Amino acid sequence: MAIYVPPTEREKKNPILPFGDHHDSPFYSMDVLSVSQFGRDDLDYIFGVAKEMRAMVERVGTFDLLKGKILANLFYEPSTRTSSSFLAAMERLGGSVIPINEVTYSSVSKGESLPDTVRTLECYADVIVIRHPEVGSAKLAAKYAKKPVINAGDGVGEHPTQALLDLFTIEEELGRIDGLTITMLGDLKYGRTVHSLARLLSQYDVSINYISPDILRMPSELVEELKVGGIRQAEFSVLDPVIGETDVLYVTRIQKERFKDAEVYKQVKGTYVITPDTLRKAKEEMIVMHPFPRVGEISMDLDQDPRAAYFRQMQCGLYVRMALLAMVFGKA
Amino acid sequence: MAIYVPPTEREKKNPILPFGDHHDSPFYSMDVLSVSQFGRDDLDYIFGVAKEMRAMVERVGTFDLLKGKILANLFYEPSTRTSSSFLAAMERLGGSVIPINEVTYSSVSKGESLPDTVRTLECYADVIVIRHPEVGSAKLAAKYAKKPVINAGDGVGEHPTQALLDLFTIEEELGRIDGLTITMLGDLKYGRTVHSLARLLSQYDVSINYISPDILRMPSELVEELKVGGIRQAEFSVLDPVIGETDVLYVTRIQKERFKDAEVYKQVKGTYVITPDTLRKAKEEMIVMHPFPRVGEISMDLDQDPRAAYFRQMQCGLYVRMALLAMVFGKA
Amino acid sequence: MAIYVPPTEREKKNPILPFGDHHDSPFYSMDVLSVSQFGRDDLDYIFGVAKEMRAMVERVGTFDLLKGKILANLFYEPSTRTSSSFLAAMERLGGSVIPINEVTYSSVSKGESLPDTVRTLECYADVIVIRHPEVGSAKLAAKYAKKPVINAGDGVGEHPTQALLDLFTIEEELGRIDGLTITMLGDLKYGRTVHSLARLLSQYDVSINYISPDILRMPSELVEELKVGGIRQAEFSVLDPVIGETDVLYVTRIQKERFKDAEVYKQVKGTYVITPDTLRKAKEEMIVMHPFPRVGEISMDLDQDPRAAYFRQMQCGLYVRMALLAMVFGKA
Repeated sequence: MAIYVPPTEREKKNPILPFGDHHDSPFYSMDVLSVSQFGRDDLDYIFGVAKEMRAMVERVGTFDLLKGKILANLFYEPSTRTSSSFLAAMERLGGSVIPINEVTYSSVSKGESLPDTVRTLECYADVIVIRHPEVGSAKLAAKYAKKPVINAGDGVGEHPTQALLDLFTIEEELGRIDGLTITMLGDLKYGRTVHSLARLLSQYDVSINYISPDILRMPSELVEELKVGGIRQAEFSVLDPVIGETDVLYVTRIQKERFKDAEVYKQVKGTYVITPDTLRKAKEEMIVMHPFPRVGEISMDLDQDPRAAYFRQMQCGLYVRMALLAMVFGKA
Repeated sequence: MAIYVPPTEREKKNPILPFGDHHDSPFYSMDVLSVSQFGRDDLDYIFGVAKEMRAMVERVGTFDLLKGKILANLFYEPSTRTSSSFLAAMERLGGSVIPINEVTYSSVSKGESLPDTVRTLECYADVIVIRHPEVGSAKLAAKYAKKPVINAGDGVGEHPTQALLDLFTIEEELGRIDGLTITMLGDLKYGRTVHSLARLLSQYDVSINYISPDILRMPSELVEELKVGGIRQAEFSVLDPVIGETDVLYVTRIQKERFKDAEVYKQVKGTYVITPDTLRKAKEEMIVMHPFPRVGEISMDLDQDPRAAYFRQMQCGLYVRMALLAMVFGKA
Repeated sequence: MAIYVPPTEREKKNPILPFGDHHDSPFYSMDVLSVSQFGRDDLDYIFGVAKEMRAMVERVGTFDLLKGKILANLFYEPSTRTSSSFLAAMERLGGSVIPINEVTYSSVSKGESLPDTVRTLECYADVIVIRHPEVGSAKLAAKYAKKPVINAGDGVGEHPTQALLDLFTIEEELGRIDGLTITMLGDLKYGRTVHSLARLLSQYDVSINYISPDILRMPSELVEELKVGGIRQAEFSVLDPVIGETDVLYVTRIQKERFKDAEVYKQVKGTYVITPDTLRKAKEEMIVMHPFPRVGEISMDLDQDPRAAYFRQMQCGLYVRMALLAMVFGKA
């Protein structure tokens, strides 16, 4: 019933199928490709919608905000967690999903180009979520698609919805982001999640500690980038000196394959396993996060500790993805 | 509109997402792991709900009893029949499904533990159906999940919904269970379906015949267990002596791989193939059942015989699974 | 609210689950197996319904015409395009889908026969869409199924919904079919899409040109069949002589494997690649079609040309499949 406002300049696109009635939203019909798209106001807005989504899910489970909309869930590499999360997000909003997981033996294996595949899928669906092993693939998909594209991970590139859910989890758990000390631990060199999260955090007044083996340190360009932005940063090879001041301990996996020398891996890996003992000197109100899957980096003994936030973090992923979908359809 | 009754002791669980309004049902939020959970009253109740489900499906096809609920259909090994049956059951109740069939190349293959996988899925879904090759896996999943878990087969362990649908089929087809003579034929040693069905039947007043090659006889412990329960049992190596008294002929597959000597297999297999000729001396009102898939154990010539109940048996599977889902959500 | 008319003789079937209320439609509960089922009146009717579907999709996106109906999407070989198209068609009509893509590792791999598989699926679903590598498989499925079966491609046999969407695209794009000149180019020997389309076109007053390498010419039996039907036909090895008179240029892929001599393939393939230059002498209102996927047969430079109709062709596929589903359920 809203008065019709013509699509803004942000919409370079001309959707074939009808969308929602809030065409004036800045997020309407937008691609979600990179965390760099979002300023602090945008983040506040997304998190506000995500909180509404949480409230609705807790009250009614599912509702018909996107009834009649179809999401193509295009996964070129497997990710049960991320694909299930988008699928559930769409279904909890009353929409439908075309799941495409078997891409290896689909028309893709017959040699079809990504631009052709996305232009095919947008004939049937209203939004495309894409996971692809190559950097830049989501951007390429968005270039060709008339319908909005959401990047669900493009190789070592970006995984923006993961970074958004990470940040949302921190705010939900600790009530704020400014003033916090975030300690990132593990493989900081190759882990795209910590890179994206660090970039998002740089919009806030935070301190960041990096804990990693020497060969897996945070890339110096990124450290420099954040330093210019005024972020307090410090690097360590062990967690102990900073666990006491840490508000958020963000743990990532150290992959054996990163080490040329198996002996070095063996010596190192134990140092980066979090157990109840690790948290002895930690604050009462701090949280432990992990993008999952974990393979031994966090002991299962820790799961009952109220500070273990990693399952609640996944739940937050559902709400953030619901928020983004609602926004992209102009329904939030 | 029912007056709210607080969750009973049977609910050790505290679901994160809202469930139905009949929180006082003994089946509300319950795991379905083993046939040993169900007494005769429970079976009567389940079959009563399954009959209602049949009536509704025949009248309207689908209805919105579980609208807004999401089922995670987690299949670690393929089973088109069982996975389609649960999927259809949920959709005919108006709910949605997260299908997870490609587990081999998902995060599971990255080494994630089953407890982590189920705790991930319950962040998105309201109930988890699990099929897994290892005995005890469904129980393990249920131990960690806050949401209800339904066992859709755990290796040589249990497949409780199959046993329930088998028993429901008998009642639907013959109008009663007490007083019947059930003849089980084929591989009685390794077939989990016949073991579970025998255990369920032991709650009724029945006679059971076992027909198998010597190396595939019903395990003596199970025979002893049922004997203690007062069940009349008899063993044979051929069907002919008992076909005339049989009310239910339950056929299972004999797998070639069970035989060390290929010659023995060749000699034996023909004996356990059911053809129209096999039923010459059978009753008019008896039925032939099979858990399917069949690979030659029952001749296709028999399919037109009204006593061939195996396709109706699958249909019963739909109703029983709908009943269990409705009950687990407190909606029946 | 329509007065009940008993099922016509065309319905040899007795569906177990309830269908729609227009049981008197000639298409109600019909199998869709071959283009040879459809006379010109049928085609007019299908295209009329497809136009309605287009209007509804453009206006509301999705609607509840088939709410509560379930489609089993049974794909024995991968086809992202066709499976997504049927999936979206069913979802845009408000129905649900059982996606079965992983047939290689399902009960089929345990050796189950196609008749058993379809009789299993019709216990759960209301209509079966089947894609299978073997000719005649859809017909075999339909012979055993009580529920309607739609052929989504049976090997080198038929792919009737592709032919129907091709013809519908021509009518939608050019406003008529009679009087047109259709030029088919590429592999005309093995391409089932051009065979089926040619047969459908033979019901209209058209001229057809065939352009192919010598070893991939249109089968002479088919040419003879159309000649008897009064269709003007001509064969060429290059496109240039007829591009000027062409209303519809239908391009198909030339597979390298068809050539014994790799040198011959190299010499030939460039001749059959469509670029903006190829269309220099073409009409303003002609269209270029392709069943997709394309692998180089049509240059991406052509995509912006308004005559490039291949993405609109896919969109038409959605409407035609929606139309067929609605008709099969007696809802159109």
